[in-house]
Order: sequence, then structure tokens, then C-alpha cells
Amino acid sequence: MTTKTLHIPAPFTLEGGAVLPELHIAYTTYGKPNPAQDNIVWIAHALTANSEAAAWWPGLVGPGQLLDPERYYIVCANIIGSCYGSTGPASIHPNTGKPYGADFPLVTVKDIVRAHQLLQRHLGIQRIRLGMGGSMGGQQLLEWAATDPGLFDQLALLATNARHSPWGIAFNEAQRMAILADPSIALPHPDAGKRGLEAARAIAMLSYRHYHTYQRTQSESSHDKIEDFLAASYQQYQGQKLQRRFNAHTYLALSKAMDSHNVGRGRGSVEDALARITARTLVVAIQSDILFPPEEQAFLARHIPHAHIAHIDSLYGHDGFLVEYDKIAPSVKALLEGEIGSPVATHTVLPSPGFTKTGKLAVPGTEGF
Amino acid sequence: MTTKTLHIPAPFTLEGGAVLPELHIAYTTYGKPNPAQDNIVWIAHALTANSEAAAWWPGLVGPGQLLDPERYYIVCANIIGSCYGSTGPASIHPNTGKPYGADFPLVTVKDIVRAHQLLQRHLGIQRIRLGMGGSMGGQQLLEWAATDPGLFDQLALLATNARHSPWGIAFNEAQRMAILADPSIALPHPDAGKRGLEAARAIAMLSYRHYHTYQRTQSESSHDKIEDFLAASYQQYQGQKLQRRFNAHTYLALSKAMDSHNVGRGRGSVEDALARITARTLVVAIQSDILFPPEEQAFLARHIPHAHIAHIDSLYGHDGFLVEYDKIAPSVKALLEGEIGSPVATHTVLPSPGFTKTGKLAVPGTEGF
Repeated sequence: MTTKTLHIPAPFTLEGGAVLPELHIAYTTYGKPNPAQDNIVWIAHALTANSEAAAWWPGLVGPGQLLDPERYYIVCANIIGSCYGSTGPASIHPNTGKPYGADFPLVTVKDIVRAHQLLQRHLGIQRIRLGMGGSMGGQQLLEWAATDPGLFDQLALLATNARHSPWGIAFNEAQRMAILADPSIALPHPDAGKRGLEAARAIAMLSYRHYHTYQRTQSESSHDKIEDFLAASYQQYQGQKLQRRFNAHTYLALSKAMDSHNVGRGRGSVEDALARITARTLVVAIQSDILFPPEEQAFLARHIPHAHIAHIDSLYGHDGFLVEYDKIAPSVKALLEGEIGSPVATHTVLPSPGFTKTGKLAVPGTEGF
Repeated sequence: MTTKTLHIPAPFTLEGGAVLPELHIAYTTYGKPNPAQDNIVWIAHALTANSEAAAWWPGLVGPGQLLDPERYYIVCANIIGSCYGSTGPASIHPNTGKPYGADFPLVTVKDIVRAHQLLQRHLGIQRIRLGMGGSMGGQQLLEWAATDPGLFDQLALLATNARHSPWGIAFNEAQRMAILADPSIALPHPDAGKRGLEAARAIAMLSYRHYHTYQRTQSESSHDKIEDFLAASYQQYQGQKLQRRFNAHTYLALSKAMDSHNVGRGRGSVEDALARITARTLVVAIQSDILFPPEEQAFLARHIPHAHIAHIDSLYGHDGFLVEYDKIAPSVKALLEGEIGSPVATHTVLPSPGFTKTGKLAVPGTEGF
């Protein structure tokens, strides 16, 4: 594993018209490209994650896993707007010597992709065997594939959509309202807006999970309590956990980027944009996902020419894409091995595996990226 | 319609041990009791509503409606902890001459019911033909019926549960976190915590509605936008609308009361508590309700001895109980007329009406109680 930062000391004009005076793009690579360049995997991360894909997807990326660095050259880059090494609100503005903070301009998913195209060129990558990502990671890959249809041989898109939904935007707005209700967001220090950020994360957890997730993991064992419930403590815990590793301005910026996602913008329609995608595509839908419900993945599978959809069940709702390795890996393996997504077998739907409840009581430590 | 306030100038000891020095209970009545006292309907209101049932349930209560004051004597009382005339955080503490604010003690659903029992006695009511309520209103009626099984002839319980779920508590906690992220909550004026309250309401709206509600009403007509989405404005609008008519301390108090709901407390088990209920009971489940999902109403119908369940479809999710008059009224009418809920036909399940999408584009003005 190697983590580096690409510095591009040139102005970068954003979709909204604002200009970033320079770009930093932090990226992590695992393994090596082979001479034919047919072993490159690009992983796109979701909202609050970072470039270390093997850390937050340990059941899919790493030695002995499906995406093994012995076999694949795996690249994952931190998205601009984030706070893990790429240019974002917590970065120092080169002219002022201070963090951008609230002055950081609107960044869109299109901007995120354009920045990663600069990294792609820097790395000399002309062809990507597999692009894989869930949630906002999948949004990036869809945007990228619509921009540069020849780049990806294969795509694995998990729990994602072609255009962010009004429901998803409403969830994000409620989170921004919580952050902005904390007036410390206006203060010029890194802890600005921390209490609001905790509330925002507690809201987000509800969209990432499901009624049954809380039922299974946060139920009380007695009827005696009238306050101090486990489920409430859990929300506090999740808020604090994110607050320690994230920044409120960054959260605002990335949630707005997510809202901006619409592959149809500038391409006539969403359907037209998806029709451009030539990659053999696996779309994974999680039955219990309330944030990116399965109908969004069904839409993708209907309009991407060489797409298959796999339905998986999960106790974890949307977060299932970070948790259900055993259910995700077989479909991705079939994609890599050419068993699904071939032009002959377009638009078919894989039978859904049995929707049994998992017996797990705790969520793996990767939760919440 | 008559709205009065009962003043009880005596200490009222709460379930948690704290003592309120006095109680005010605001209540509204419609129509008149008949000599046999067999026309009394008690309506229990939900989280942020008030005693004026005909205002927030206009399609069910009022002249020409199912619950017509010409025929029924209808009582609805503001719950303690609220800010519509009954004792709550915004009330003046008789000893200090100032609002209770953050010093208002924990009130439970059991306390709310005990306060309403005082009103019941004051009104000389010994028998209630129908108790009807949705959401937190249904929670009160379940608690009341378990406490005093002989009181209600019939119950109509909409979109409610026997014990507030970890998921519901987690939603409430996220809302409390947003309110407490706004430090103005500590200030001694009525507008304390208003921004946090707006965020809390925006969160709550997500639980009251559904992916498809936002999809249908807040979709963009063009692909050009990269910010300022309708769905975001809608969240702001809903937050502001509640903020103008509600109080942040009150919101905290009532959300904690909701968390406390558990008919099993002090009664062995939830099942034992429900088994005490002798009323012929209609349980209404809304298929798209993510806050009180249908399995919770199925549980009620399984364990209340003389219960029927009716499933209704709604574009509005949980808020369907405030909106879908045409789907709710026929079942309640059947209950009132003795066609369902008889001891012979226990535990049966009404066939679900066709789950067609409604064609409505706007939500009626009662939204959000």
C-alpha cells in the first residue's frame, strides 16, 4: 500500500464557476499495474471515507480478498471537498494561509470526477478493468463512465443512483440544518460546528440503517426504563465517533456535492446518459436500503445497456454495501470472470438470494463510511 | 366547539418521581353527551398537535363528518408537556413566576394518561364509546386502556405501537441532538432553540413521509440545477412552519415522553398488557409508514383480544393518518356500527384495499401534526 498526494499547482474551474487556485489529490494504491494494463481497479469512496479502501472495505480489498493486490493494481483517491488529503474546506487556501472553511465553493460530483481524471492521466491509466463503488462512490463512477465511456471495462455499482433523489436531498438538508443550528460553525477553528456535526451524523445513521437494525442491536432487555435508552446512546456515540475524525465544513461541502449528482445534466436526459455506458455493469441493490432504495438500482439496470442487477438482503440497510462482503463478493467475482454483464445477456435480472436475516448482533467496525 | 382549561391546584407526582406543583389541562369538546353516555368519543392527539381535533382532523371530526358533533360528544385534551394550554415547559412555574424551560421534569405517556384521567373524572365520564388516536395519540389510548380496561367500548388506533421502538427513539434522539446543538436553547426566552427546532422538524418530516412522497412532490423539472433544490427548500419551510407555533423545550419534553411509551412497564410484558384490553379494537396500519411500520400494528392486532387490522396505502407514509380520511373513515365507521371487532371475529385481518398510488400532488394543510 502506498499513499501519495498529487499536487496540481494550477487553477481548477468548478462546474459552478468558482475557481480553486490549486488541487491536492491524495490517493492510495495497492499492487502493481501489469504491462497490458488489464488489472487496474479504481475504487470510488463514499461520503465520509478516505483513500484507504482496504481499511474500510477489508472484506473485499486486500491480500486473500476478491480484490487482491497480488493480482490487481487498485487505486482509490480521496475526493475533492473531503478532509483526507485532497483539497477541501479544511485545506489551507494558498493565498490566505488559512483554511477555506465556509468560503470553500460548491463542488459537484462532476468536479470530483474531473479532478480524478487529472490523477488518472498522471498515473498514465488509459483503461480500467473494474470501477467499483457504493453510494456516492457509485455516483462518481456513473458520472465518469458517462463522460468517458471507453475507460471502464466493467463497473460494479452498489446501492447508488443516477440522480440524487429529492428524498436524499431532504435527508442531507436536515443534516445541514443541524450543522448550521450550531453557531460555532462560524468560528475559525477546526472544531467549529462539532455539536451540529454530531447531530448530522445521527440523522445520517437513520438513513444508512433500518428499523430492524436498531430493533436487533438497540433493544432494551427490560421494561423498566423511562429514559436513557440504548438507541439514544447509540446515536450520541455515532455522532461523537464521526466528529472526532471529520470536519463540519467538509460535511456540508460533500453533502452538497451529493445533492448535485445527476448524470442527465448536460446530456439530454438521465436515460441518454446511462445509454452511453459501454462497460459490462453489475448493479447491486440492497432490499432494506431506505436511502437508495432498490428501485433506483432497477432504473440503472434498465437503462445501462450491459447491466445485471443483483438483489441482496441485509439487516444493515444502505450500510449493507460496507458490510455484506459475503453477499457482494460472489456477484463481483462473476462480473470479473465474465460470467455476467456480457452484451448477450443484457437487462436480465439475477435471481435474488434468499432474504434470510443475518444472525449478527454487532456491526463491523467499518460502519459509517 | 368549546375550549376550556381545567386547573388542578394540587401536586401531581410524575412516574419519574418529580412533582408538578399544579396542573392545567386544556380541552376542547364538540357536541353534547346523551343521557346514556353512549355517544362519547375521546380523541388523543399526537406529538405537536392541540386539543382542537376538528382543526387537524377536518375530514373525520366536525359537522357532516364521521364524528359529527350532532351525534357524538367529542373530547380532545392537550397533553401535559405540550404548549397548547396544558402544563408544559412553556408554562409558568407558580413558585418562580417564570417558564419551566429546561427544568420541566420528564413526563411519560403514563403521566399524560393519568392527567387525562383527572379530566375524565372532572367531566363525569364513566364510559367512552370510542377512543381514537394516531401515532402518540394511539400510544396514550393503549396505555389508558391497559390501565382502565372497562372504560372504552371501542378503540381506533392508527399508525401506533405498544412500545416505542429503538428506531423511533433514535429518530427522536437525532432531533434532540439538533435542538441541543443550538446553544440558544439555554437562553431564558420563548425563542430559545428555534434554529435547532427547525432542524429537528426537518428530521421528523423524513420519518413522517416516505421516499415517494418527496419524489412526487419535490422533484425538479430540469436537470440544470446544481444547488438550491426544491426538496431542500421544503425542509427549511417545514422547519420554519413548526418553529413559529412551537417551543423547543416542549419538543424535547414530548419526544422524551414518546420514547417512554411501553405498555408492558409494570404489567409483566407487553403481551400481558395488551391482553387486558376488552374494547373492540380497530388497528390501522399504513403500508408506507417507516416510523411505525405495519409490523407494529400487526403485533397489536395479534395481542389485543378483540382486534381487527386494516391496511391502508398512502403516498404520505406515517402522515397518512392525518391525511387519508377516505381510507380511514370506512373502517372506523364499521367499528362504530359493530361490523368489526366483535368477540366472535377476533384476530382476523381485513383484506387490504388495493395499494394504488394516490394522484394527489400536494399534502393537505393539516400536515405535520
